[in-house]
Amino acid sequence: MSTEQVESTYDAFLEHVNQYYYLGGASSILGWDQRVVMPDEGTPARSKQQAALSSVTHEKLTAEEFGELLSELDGNVSGDRAAVVREMKRKYERAARVPDDLVQRLSEASSNALPVWKEAKAEDDFSIFEDTLAEQIELKKEYAEAIDPDRDPYEVLVEDYEPYISLEDIEAALTTLREELPPLIADIRESDVELADPFDGEYPEENQEALVRAALDTLDYNWNRGRLDTAPHPFSSGTQFDARVTTRFAADDPMGALGSTIHEFGHASYTLGLPDEEYGTPLGDSRDMVVHESQSRLWENHVGRSLPFWKNFAPAVEEHLGVSATPQEFYEAANEVYDDNLIRVEADELTYHMHIVIRFEIERDLIRGELDVSEVPQVWNDKMEEYLGVRPDTDAEGCLQDIHWSGGSFGYFPTYSLGSVLAAQLYAAAEDELGNLDDAIEAAEFDGLMGWLTENVHSHGCRYTTPELIEEATGEPFSAEPFLEYVTEKYGELYEL
Amino acid sequence: MSTEQVESTYDAFLEHVNQYYYLGGASSILGWDQRVVMPDEGTPARSKQQAALSSVTHEKLTAEEFGELLSELDGNVSGDRAAVVREMKRKYERAARVPDDLVQRLSEASSNALPVWKEAKAEDDFSIFEDTLAEQIELKKEYAEAIDPDRDPYEVLVEDYEPYISLEDIEAALTTLREELPPLIADIRESDVELADPFDGEYPEENQEALVRAALDTLDYNWNRGRLDTAPHPFSSGTQFDARVTTRFAADDPMGALGSTIHEFGHASYTLGLPDEEYGTPLGDSRDMVVHESQSRLWENHVGRSLPFWKNFAPAVEEHLGVSATPQEFYEAANEVYDDNLIRVEADELTYHMHIVIRFEIERDLIRGELDVSEVPQVWNDKMEEYLGVRPDTDAEGCLQDIHWSGGSFGYFPTYSLGSVLAAQLYAAAEDELGNLDDAIEAAEFDGLMGWLTENVHSHGCRYTTPELIEEATGEPFSAEPFLEYVTEKYGELYEL
Repeated sequence: MSTEQVESTYDAFLEHVNQYYYLGGASSILGWDQRVVMPDEGTPARSKQQAALSSVTHEKLTAEEFGELLSELDGNVSGDRAAVVREMKRKYERAARVPDDLVQRLSEASSNALPVWKEAKAEDDFSIFEDTLAEQIELKKEYAEAIDPDRDPYEVLVEDYEPYISLEDIEAALTTLREELPPLIADIRESDVELADPFDGEYPEENQEALVRAALDTLDYNWNRGRLDTAPHPFSSGTQFDARVTTRFAADDPMGALGSTIHEFGHASYTLGLPDEEYGTPLGDSRDMVVHESQSRLWENHVGRSLPFWKNFAPAVEEHLGVSATPQEFYEAANEVYDDNLIRVEADELTYHMHIVIRFEIERDLIRGELDVSEVPQVWNDKMEEYLGVRPDTDAEGCLQDIHWSGGSFGYFPTYSLGSVLAAQLYAAAEDELGNLDDAIEAAEFDGLMGWLTENVHSHGCRYTTPELIEEATGEPFSAEPFLEYVTEKYGELYEL
Repeated sequence: MSTEQVESTYDAFLEHVNQYYYLGGASSILGWDQRVVMPDEGTPARSKQQAALSSVTHEKLTAEEFGELLSELDGNVSGDRAAVVREMKRKYERAARVPDDLVQRLSEASSNALPVWKEAKAEDDFSIFEDTLAEQIELKKEYAEAIDPDRDPYEVLVEDYEPYISLEDIEAALTTLREELPPLIADIRESDVELADPFDGEYPEENQEALVRAALDTLDYNWNRGRLDTAPHPFSSGTQFDARVTTRFAADDPMGALGSTIHEFGHASYTLGLPDEEYGTPLGDSRDMVVHESQSRLWENHVGRSLPFWKNFAPAVEEHLGVSATPQEFYEAANEVYDDNLIRVEADELTYHMHIVIRFEIERDLIRGELDVSEVPQVWNDKMEEYLGVRPDTDAEGCLQDIHWSGGSFGYFPTYSLGSVLAAQLYAAAEDELGNLDDAIEAAEFDGLMGWLTENVHSHGCRYTTPELIEEATGEPFSAEPFLEYVTEKYGELYEL
């Protein structure tokens, strides 16, 4: 193609790309609305609005004309344009290969499975969910086969959430966690150290809200491009112009609200760091789940659960909740490793990953047909006992605790742990370049850290694949070592190991 | 066509219709979000999302396939289906006749005109706005010509807001108001009666909010399908599953907040009365501006500004604002006709319509080329003096006070007055059938009135054209007589005329 042809083809291509992203942005607003402000009985209309949006978005992405523009450009552009083509080609191919009726069946199966899972969990009876789960697995295998019949279906599914880190590397990281963390957890359990916990009452929601707003102020959240609301399951969503945070409050758990708020702030900070001028293209869109989760975990754990943060923030807890304690005591409360916790979302930074390892091993084997659905509760409980030394008494506290599989999300769980792992790697790289960040955090000066993250991660959007981005940012390939160093040092000190 | 062919053609047609409505519903949610909760700097992304939604909605409506389905069905279906075809054909033709580039230019002109109008109003200088207004007029004439080059362009424009009441009938109603109301207003100004006004302080927003929520409770607003928020310019939007109300508060004007809340409640009550099962078709969509405004005005004026309402609601004002007065005193405060008010949105039920008559006369002549833009301030002031006996000192308080023309909304103003007129006609018809409603309103029993409105207006959606709907509901053609009777009796009593 001549340069002029490339220009005009690229312009036409970009118009499709823009529409695809803008419609996705509209859908995201409808999702926020549904989860945050929609009246109870609004669901029937909302489901139809979202389905119509999905349908036109899918039409835009799989339009024949778009496929032609893509193949004309593929190989004929370089630099940022090549990245845009690479990302859209991936989306196009995955969308185009899955037949419409399968998309429809997947969507219906998710809708139908949700109440079944809820009932099974409420009744504490896995058998209620068993057939539904089996059906989801068969559908997802069909989906994976439609995308690529020649590859391991689990590998194909994982790529919906993390397209570029190989399953081999994912498995290696999780194996490292599975091998290295249990001994550390065991040492902690044997330690005589009792961490402080200055929280022993109930704290009104309005006080907790004032506290988490103070935390967002401390972290320089850009309120002109964001807002804080409550949602049953906290999330963050939006664009670089409008990245919102949600949280939830439980009367007896202000640290839970704070952790969740800072976690979602981390997600929002990534979104806010994307370049304004690239909104509507992959260069203005965030990388996938692993990188996103690295940002939430970095702020939640490396900042929000650090001693320097509490040296700064302790007075806010006294001001808003009337709880007076030393920074060290708050720091300890934020990092306690419980002996008997069974619930992933309530787990500390160590035992958390055992949940993920177990989910990963089970879902991989289910999708590969190497494990029968009926065996899931038994296998779950055995693995909990093996890795964590606790055995759930009920399925509700065991394999039924999480919603993901009911929605057909197989391959999603690993991204949580990989996010933590990457958070530690990025934080270590930031400190390599900026020097130790403790003083800055204590002074609530976050420009350095946020600037580094924006420069090295946020501002690139999807310019690089995940492994390239990690290598560009840290100078090293993806590695679990910094995470292990971080937890070994942190918990070694806390529990005097 | 065979019956089977009609069935399958209608099904295919309906799928397009549904998508059109569902995407419109999505756009409406984005609009609510932008006006109520969006962070300040969210506009650039939102504009693009809305433009993308408009574009795909327009594509759905003007798709060749849809046009073919329409013409196959036109004349081959009856009853409700004929109504659906009639409404969609109208939308299709108007959309298909306007070239894309004109749509684009209209949209850009509106965006560009808004800040110019704002500046002109702030600077109190019509000349700043003059060229922009002239450009809007030219564009709207071009638009009207694209739709129908053989008809009066103003008539064509009015049909964007009220497609079925003829311009002749609209003009007749407005002429009646212009002739009948000024003598009544003059009599009131000559009256020695001073109406009570128990409000003389400032009332905190939280107290005013509690008051208007109490009013919505009193009116049986369905909170499971609605919510109340604040917006700079109150509005109501949504679907029969989710019809939301907004209001605004000024410290010294709790009656303003109350009136605006009840007004928007009236709009929402119409939306909530549409049939659930028809969501996504014209039968599940409200009729146009005149009918919508009749519902807001009926609840705002015939209920909210009535003595029986205040017999019920007076204690709520004492409870929430600490203002103690008799029902009669609150009733008087809600209905005072000011001698010197210049602002439409602050006007009473009588002088209000003079604003509309003036707007109508000016915009009609502007569009027909019978009035030059430069003459607008002079003509506005002259007419205010002629009809209301007051002359604005400034353009900001005169012809620049309203936003509508900056957005290209010519033909919109008349629907406000026609809504009031229709409200009175419907209220009189409801009382003809149900008997005098004073006791029910005083007892806050609204099932009878709302049931009548739902049965005779809301539940029909767009089954009937506006004149048919009025005739079905009231047994009479559209008429200003009930409105004149209502105001003559009400204000005659209040001002002892």
